[in-house]
Amino acid sequence: MPISLARGPGDYTPVRVAVVGLGYWGPNLVRNLQEHADAELVAVCDRREDALSALGRRYPGVRLTTRLEDLLEADDIEAIAIATPVSTHHPIASAILRAGKHVFVEKPLAASGDEATDLMDTADRAGLVLMPGHTFLYSPPVNCIRDLLQAGELGDVYFVSMSRVNLGLHQSDVSVAWDLAPHDFSILQYWFDETPQHVSATSRNCVMPTVSDVAFISLDFPSGMISHVELSWLAPSKLRRTTIVGSRKMLVYDDTSNEPVRVFDSGVQLPSPESFGEYNLTYRTGDILSPHLPAAEPLLLEMGDFCRAIRTGESPRSHAKLGVEVVRMIEGVDESIRSQGARVTIGDVPVEAPSALAA
Amino acid sequence: MPISLARGPGDYTPVRVAVVGLGYWGPNLVRNLQEHADAELVAVCDRREDALSALGRRYPGVRLTTRLEDLLEADDIEAIAIATPVSTHHPIASAILRAGKHVFVEKPLAASGDEATDLMDTADRAGLVLMPGHTFLYSPPVNCIRDLLQAGELGDVYFVSMSRVNLGLHQSDVSVAWDLAPHDFSILQYWFDETPQHVSATSRNCVMPTVSDVAFISLDFPSGMISHVELSWLAPSKLRRTTIVGSRKMLVYDDTSNEPVRVFDSGVQLPSPESFGEYNLTYRTGDILSPHLPAAEPLLLEMGDFCRAIRTGESPRSHAKLGVEVVRMIEGVDESIRSQGARVTIGDVPVEAPSALAA
Amino acid sequence: MPISLARGPGDYTPVRVAVVGLGYWGPNLVRNLQEHADAELVAVCDRREDALSALGRRYPGVRLTTRLEDLLEADDIEAIAIATPVSTHHPIASAILRAGKHVFVEKPLAASGDEATDLMDTADRAGLVLMPGHTFLYSPPVNCIRDLLQAGELGDVYFVSMSRVNLGLHQSDVSVAWDLAPHDFSILQYWFDETPQHVSATSRNCVMPTVSDVAFISLDFPSGMISHVELSWLAPSKLRRTTIVGSRKMLVYDDTSNEPVRVFDSGVQLPSPESFGEYNLTYRTGDILSPHLPAAEPLLLEMGDFCRAIRTGESPRSHAKLGVEVVRMIEGVDESIRSQGARVTIGDVPVEAPSALAA
Amino acid sequence: MPISLARGPGDYTPVRVAVVGLGYWGPNLVRNLQEHADAELVAVCDRREDALSALGRRYPGVRLTTRLEDLLEADDIEAIAIATPVSTHHPIASAILRAGKHVFVEKPLAASGDEATDLMDTADRAGLVLMPGHTFLYSPPVNCIRDLLQAGELGDVYFVSMSRVNLGLHQSDVSVAWDLAPHDFSILQYWFDETPQHVSATSRNCVMPTVSDVAFISLDFPSGMISHVELSWLAPSKLRRTTIVGSRKMLVYDDTSNEPVRVFDSGVQLPSPESFGEYNLTYRTGDILSPHLPAAEPLLLEMGDFCRAIRTGESPRSHAKLGVEVVRMIEGVDESIRSQGARVTIGDVPVEAPSALAA
Repeated sequence: MPISLARGPGDYTPVRVAVVGLGYWGPNLVRNLQEHADAELVAVCDRREDALSALGRRYPGVRLTTRLEDLLEADDIEAIAIATPVSTHHPIASAILRAGKHVFVEKPLAASGDEATDLMDTADRAGLVLMPGHTFLYSPPVNCIRDLLQAGELGDVYFVSMSRVNLGLHQSDVSVAWDLAPHDFSILQYWFDETPQHVSATSRNCVMPTVSDVAFISLDFPSGMISHVELSWLAPSKLRRTTIVGSRKMLVYDDTSNEPVRVFDSGVQLPSPESFGEYNLTYRTGDILSPHLPAAEPLLLEMGDFCRAIRTGESPRSHAKLGVEVVRMIEGVDESIRSQGARVTIGDVPVEAPSALAA
Repeated sequence: MPISLARGPGDYTPVRVAVVGLGYWGPNLVRNLQEHADAELVAVCDRREDALSALGRRYPGVRLTTRLEDLLEADDIEAIAIATPVSTHHPIASAILRAGKHVFVEKPLAASGDEATDLMDTADRAGLVLMPGHTFLYSPPVNCIRDLLQAGELGDVYFVSMSRVNLGLHQSDVSVAWDLAPHDFSILQYWFDETPQHVSATSRNCVMPTVSDVAFISLDFPSGMISHVELSWLAPSKLRRTTIVGSRKMLVYDDTSNEPVRVFDSGVQLPSPESFGEYNLTYRTGDILSPHLPAAEPLLLEMGDFCRAIRTGESPRSHAKLGVEVVRMIEGVDESIRSQGARVTIGDVPVEAPSALAA
Repeated sequence: MPISLARGPGDYTPVRVAVVGLGYWGPNLVRNLQEHADAELVAVCDRREDALSALGRRYPGVRLTTRLEDLLEADDIEAIAIATPVSTHHPIASAILRAGKHVFVEKPLAASGDEATDLMDTADRAGLVLMPGHTFLYSPPVNCIRDLLQAGELGDVYFVSMSRVNLGLHQSDVSVAWDLAPHDFSILQYWFDETPQHVSATSRNCVMPTVSDVAFISLDFPSGMISHVELSWLAPSKLRRTTIVGSRKMLVYDDTSNEPVRVFDSGVQLPSPESFGEYNLTYRTGDILSPHLPAAEPLLLEMGDFCRAIRTGESPRSHAKLGVEVVRMIEGVDESIRSQGARVTIGDVPVEAPSALAA
Repeated sequence: MPISLARGPGDYTPVRVAVVGLGYWGPNLVRNLQEHADAELVAVCDRREDALSALGRRYPGVRLTTRLEDLLEADDIEAIAIATPVSTHHPIASAILRAGKHVFVEKPLAASGDEATDLMDTADRAGLVLMPGHTFLYSPPVNCIRDLLQAGELGDVYFVSMSRVNLGLHQSDVSVAWDLAPHDFSILQYWFDETPQHVSATSRNCVMPTVSDVAFISLDFPSGMISHVELSWLAPSKLRRTTIVGSRKMLVYDDTSNEPVRVFDSGVQLPSPESFGEYNLTYRTGDILSPHLPAAEPLLLEMGDFCRAIRTGESPRSHAKLGVEVVRMIEGVDESIRSQGARVTIGDVPVEAPSALAA
């Protein structure tokens, strides 16, 4: 089953975790850590006392604090999950790593490629897990498609066209690209294991004068594949639609549908090399298959993978290098928008993709 | 009714028309000219004698010829419709105009902006109709949307996102942009009466080594509106989907649907100027309306408009200036693709949009 | 707003309620009673101690008991909600009413029309609220449609066609009609305020030898309206689709859709009486409207209506007479199936629809 | 390929055919006979001279006549296709058979079971082809489903639910059942090779006082399978939807969809006989497959099958016995409606299904 995560030889001791930040996403981390057998939720930190006390009523056994230092100094806390605003990711995660604890950081990993790289380097040197929260890497349709791609079912992928649009929710501090692109960029990284060479993007600040709420992003990859990503907080209806066109088959991934993956056995063929000059193309339209997908709670799997990485020393599926590259791709988007849509080169991050954490 | 075309004070004498080119589209022109009360199909020209004789069996009264000169020299032919490959549009249309006859040219008007402009200038000087065949300007949903836009129903248009993809048919002589963009570009021109300032585009030659079969095109307009157009001959299923996001309402135009126009009374509001700094946005979701559209045959209306323009001296809805700008937009796409996605300025055509033909 | 429930002149004291039965549905009653400001959840009863103790951990202040008598004898309990198997509804509800407490009974009200009538009579004599749990009467689309019907938007309703099918869940003790028909039958009663005169039904026991899992039910009403209801636990995909065809407009209610109500301004007209003999019909196809529906939690509204009825003495929207008629309609289905699809007369219940409870 | 029709050892001489009736459907027969290599359209008959002359202009070589006798007496006419009102099918087809010519009759075969049987007997005695025009028997999705059923892909079929509704066109002379049921009833016959034992039906004359325009029809078959057919000329949107629920798989046939056949690998299982008493059911949800269907023109295939039957002496796929049973099923619907929905026994026709024509 594609989304399962292999266990080590035996069950391991639950990881004692704390959570920082009880805003929009933090409570989801709390709930899933509480439910997961491999984790033990020890403490929660937020600046707002009312948020803490509300949480305390639901989870009476959890320590509550408004001071991050309490978590850093606590000997019974092995790992901390961060769900605070992006601008705080780097200082908080750095402090946690320096305190010798593993870190889970909600996506995007940091507010810049340099920050993200610094976190990765710090974690590597310390031999600690640094895991960005790219939850889609644990979703059943995304994994079904990865399996199809790796099995060569689609042939060479010509291009990928992605749309992620809906009405709201505008962020006041980050653009639509920083809000939504981490989803699509992490999925692209996970599916294709390559970072784009160039990005060009156009956008508009429709509603608020300084925050872009629609963006059209073009990427090209070393393999020749190209990709386009449409992102918007302004849309008449929700679209979560990705089309993958390969030389053998094509595929539509619609995350709003009851049938999120549909594989089209369709394509075009050049009948033979010698007839090439005549462009004597044949179009093939075959069966359409909606594979059955297992039910799964991606966030629960993600929390489990964080614990597994801590206990086994193996890299989590959503690993730091992937998180760094996602941030660098978004930086490229920003730079292209600033230069009015110019084609921007995405510098590859000069580190190896980790297969295991340093001892 | 939006798609009706006003008549002059009285019926006019049918226009005596000939058709050049019996390939894919020519027979449709022949059929619609034959059916239209305001036209009289006099002659048809094609190089291939078998195509002519097949047509002659269906339309016994029509003169057949393999020589364009026969049409040019015929005193009883007032106007000629061209449905030949794009590269031949300029020489053939020029010859027709020089022979003092009106011309209808299948889209795109010509193979370059200079060619298209030259044709327009020639026609203007001669006081003849030069009409590019942008058939979508006569389709019920396109006109319904134009009426909604002009009535201000959508408010200020923030952006337009268009997808026109399906499997095939690859052309060997022109790219996907030359094949499909004339539809979307002419619709944009018709809806908004403005030419984009810049275009940037990425594409790939997936199947054939020298012909691009997928393109992602970004446009920005003087009004601030931006637009994105996705075009492809490679797609698992046919999409003809345009989303218009305005400050008051939003709209989806899906030309493959039984309900091609759907108006969403949805949007986002800044509640008051003073609260602006807090980005206190309100999202509004209201009714969705699918307006009933009249049944109509766009190509028949288009042929009628050609005849009307000839008899009345008024500009046809699909006028030469619009056709020129569509070609210049496609040229911009080509130039951007050649410069690896760079943002290209579209030079405005230095003529006035004609409201009437010269006397 | 259609689904709001008018309050009296002032807020009333919360009703002290207990819940019997913690199976599939009971926990939903518990949760909504706990959340509602007009209710105070006092106690919960179930035979299974483990179910009680699990619930007690989530709601520490609630009394737990395995004995119904504890609830009946408790002076601080004013009302009891029953979510036990249908066969137990009559004895439990009778005991509660005899103990002088108000009763909410999950649908269907009882296992037979006689039982249901007896409960209604008992409650009437005692001046107590007896409320069947027909939750759809509190759902936004159902109320939107009722408003449209009452405003005459659809004209005379010719017929209603309903499909409620999905894969599972087979019940071992009741047929698909007893499981699913209460939804559609209560909706029909609520929309049209009339009980059908006749019912005929066919069914099959596909999977289990003695339990029907598919049924096709035809109803005719005094007004001339007819209705068909298709019910099944065996279906490739979930359908919750109702079509209402009226003399002025038509409507589709699809409870699985993002746009659950769609109003079609379509119909057929006899142009004039004198041309009648020629059946010179005109078909009209107009706009399609998806009205925006308010967000609401039907079960929460239902619990509130129960409390309101207790405090105000007014009939709840889902009133006992409606519950009795729903049961008699299902009895008619059973009888028709037993007599191989024969047309069965549904005896009207010889009581008045209550507009207020007896003093 | 399912819809192909096997040829005999060699090509046969084209059948010389005439067509009677140029109303709504007749011109389609004319066009397809004209196109088919195995047919030669010799003559056309209609009472209305203007209809004849219009057709003559399109098909100059075809003889035109207002007198049926001209066709009956013509030695060069081997077969006649009838597209006249149902009430005239029996007298016209009888006359043709008596004249020694083969007959194709548009569906339904005749206006009563006795008439239809009489035609079949007459044709059998004369050794002539009598073919009812059940065109759906030549449609790709219907044949794809027949292949799946015959291969046992769906297991035992529990039930079939069919909806065929749209707005219009009301007939003044026949009910909605006579108009639309021939489609569904012929498909059921073709798929399952069995005639239902009983039928019960309800209907209403909504628009016209004496013509039913909506009908709900229940059928039960000797195999235990049941079926329901909903028919209407009054509907907000067109539905052509059939669901087949089998013990192994389920299937949806939607004739308005781009993917008309969808096979659901879903079902319910009793895990073992001994656990039966506990109704320990397991629900299985698997892949969904939309098989690719070949493009085909059913009416052209139908005309070819008529010619093939004449030349080879083999029974056409749409054979007389099937046409007779369809008519008897509709008669059952009428009788049930007259007796207010009573369950009516459909008498089986006391002849053998022909595998070959009598010599």
